[in-house]
Amino acid sequence: MKTVTVLGATGSVGRSTLDLVERAPEAFEVLALTANCDVARLAAAAIRTNARLAVVADESCLPALRDALAGTGIATAGGGDAVCEAAAMGADWTMAAIVGCAGLKPVMTAIRAGGAVALANKEALVSAGEVMTAAAAANGATLLPVDSEHNAIFQCLEPGNRDAVRRIILTASGGPFRDWDAAAMHAITPEQAVAHPNWSMGAKISVDSATMMNKGLELIEAHHLFAMPSDRLDVIVHRQSVVHSLVEYRDGSLLAQLGPSDMRVPIAHALAWPERMATPMAPLDLIAIGRLDFEAPDPVRFPALRLARAALEAGGARPAILNAANEVAVAAFLDRRIGFLEIAAIVEDTLGRYDPGAPDSLDAVLNVDAEARRIAGGRVKIGV
Amino acid sequence: MKTVTVLGATGSVGRSTLDLVERAPEAFEVLALTANCDVARLAAAAIRTNARLAVVADESCLPALRDALAGTGIATAGGGDAVCEAAAMGADWTMAAIVGCAGLKPVMTAIRAGGAVALANKEALVSAGEVMTAAAAANGATLLPVDSEHNAIFQCLEPGNRDAVRRIILTASGGPFRDWDAAAMHAITPEQAVAHPNWSMGAKISVDSATMMNKGLELIEAHHLFAMPSDRLDVIVHRQSVVHSLVEYRDGSLLAQLGPSDMRVPIAHALAWPERMATPMAPLDLIAIGRLDFEAPDPVRFPALRLARAALEAGGARPAILNAANEVAVAAFLDRRIGFLEIAAIVEDTLGRYDPGAPDSLDAVLNVDAEARRIAGGRVKIGV
Repeated sequence: MKTVTVLGATGSVGRSTLDLVERAPEAFEVLALTANCDVARLAAAAIRTNARLAVVADESCLPALRDALAGTGIATAGGGDAVCEAAAMGADWTMAAIVGCAGLKPVMTAIRAGGAVALANKEALVSAGEVMTAAAAANGATLLPVDSEHNAIFQCLEPGNRDAVRRIILTASGGPFRDWDAAAMHAITPEQAVAHPNWSMGAKISVDSATMMNKGLELIEAHHLFAMPSDRLDVIVHRQSVVHSLVEYRDGSLLAQLGPSDMRVPIAHALAWPERMATPMAPLDLIAIGRLDFEAPDPVRFPALRLARAALEAGGARPAILNAANEVAVAAFLDRRIGFLEIAAIVEDTLGRYDPGAPDSLDAVLNVDAEARRIAGGRVKIGV
Repeated sequence: MKTVTVLGATGSVGRSTLDLVERAPEAFEVLALTANCDVARLAAAAIRTNARLAVVADESCLPALRDALAGTGIATAGGGDAVCEAAAMGADWTMAAIVGCAGLKPVMTAIRAGGAVALANKEALVSAGEVMTAAAAANGATLLPVDSEHNAIFQCLEPGNRDAVRRIILTASGGPFRDWDAAAMHAITPEQAVAHPNWSMGAKISVDSATMMNKGLELIEAHHLFAMPSDRLDVIVHRQSVVHSLVEYRDGSLLAQLGPSDMRVPIAHALAWPERMATPMAPLDLIAIGRLDFEAPDPVRFPALRLARAALEAGGARPAILNAANEVAVAAFLDRRIGFLEIAAIVEDTLGRYDPGAPDSLDAVLNVDAEARRIAGGRVKIGV
């Protein structure tokens, strides 16, 4: 019996996690579920899984949660501190699926409690990678990546043979514009950018996939998760998104993980790790797929990759600035305040204007994040 | 320091093994090298690797070997028993690369000595799979597959999660005739059949690849090596031979091993296992390769796959008969005594005429092998 807490239980990753947990009630006991303010979904999930505690981050939603769970025996709480207290309950396994910087403190709290922490929150590793991996090492916590690419790498790494890794190769779908002329990319609309060819995702991450900033952020994540320097991390465009990533060893072997484009596959891997659990998805049909293509990413049409790699190599506060400026720029693009190609331009401009020292704590990371957002927001208004 | 013996040191696999051993002299100490009668190559290899013992299976070649190694301090011996004595010296790691049934007794001897036994001899597992795996279990020997497909599977299997394997998928190049019309296959010549598209191989195995009997034999090997029933073993045609095989887990993940078409990659894996050693080959360039294709094998044009699967499912003596009849038929085809499509016909005919009980010892296997060869040889003369 594994005790489980899900931080961000009502979002896409949280719901997929609970779907798997509920299919194996004999294997999992739910301690806490948290959400921002989706009371109906949170209360229903808490009842179905017989959770001990349900928490809303937005304290104004607590009365509704109390009403929804009245008489069930499930405890309730509200506010950011309550989310962190849920994370500190010491679950054997915690899913960290709170989106954005709101997830940083709860993730760190779960890491400090030891146990296994499944990471679906990109920002945590990109902005606070050093702080987080140091905390995991100090507290004996295991970080289990849930992103399909990093989960694939985790599956392909042999625990005793980390030193024998020559190269990690992240696959990228290339997004909807991989075949577009540079000239046509000026006029890309938000509607075009959120139509990802292979995965069903939120608007922010779809735009990141379209600019390939997503893959740049994943390079930074891979650096922290797998302690690999930039020159041993590669990106390859693989339009079918069937091979989720590869690890090349010094003997010439590459191991790859393949699977259907369903987040429940990597989530199930993290949830059952180091064992494997059954999942209900249809098996991957390689014969029906027929063909897998691989090509080099285009650094000219997709400058975000170059910016991310430079931030990774410089380290310190640069990845946090990159991430914060990108969030602001993507939001402005989705609001039609800037064009598609200006996303990377604003990120580059912000990185050029702000260069503080390396943050040494979570609070320092949050300060860098806030200042980078302020600067990027200013550039959105003025134009770059 | 790992002590190493190479049975069949002068063939293609033996030479590749020594190439790797010689690149890491600090890691390996050579005990014995054996060959059939290639004295020049055997003596040179023994001197280069400072082996303790060199053995020729063909006793008539022993005087020449003695001359070649006079004054070196390297011991010499000749004859089949001497090969078995070399296999019994208790090396930490033994490469079993003697071709055909001549390799069966030395392989069994090495297995009985415990240690790790790298298997490059297909016949051993196909004909005597049950006998060999039982001996390995009884003597604490580890069987390390060297065939690129089985080595790939071995790399993709998680030691603790064997029960979580849903399916093993062997890849097949499909051979040079994968796109031919059935009507045109009657006229295939030995020259056409030995021109394998991806690998440089001997004539026998090239013909087996062209008929896909090679993949049928590998199904049987996989059954023994990985204790998998027939219905969890699949074959997929993958013309580029870049993905060497895949393992599908019950959670929906597939792990695959990829690598250049160079036998030194799987040999290096077996040689360094459970660690990994550096090899000199150029890394696989997925971008230059660009495209990987997968399709279903055609059971009509390639009946050998069906025959092999039936033999696997029936078990007992059937795989040994299949293998023996196939060797006779392929030799007859290479001699232009029968046509390409008659290879499978002779195998099927022999299986129909001979159905002894399951062999329970190596000698019983060798008797089945001899009788099947006699029957198949008769059918070659008469015609099927």
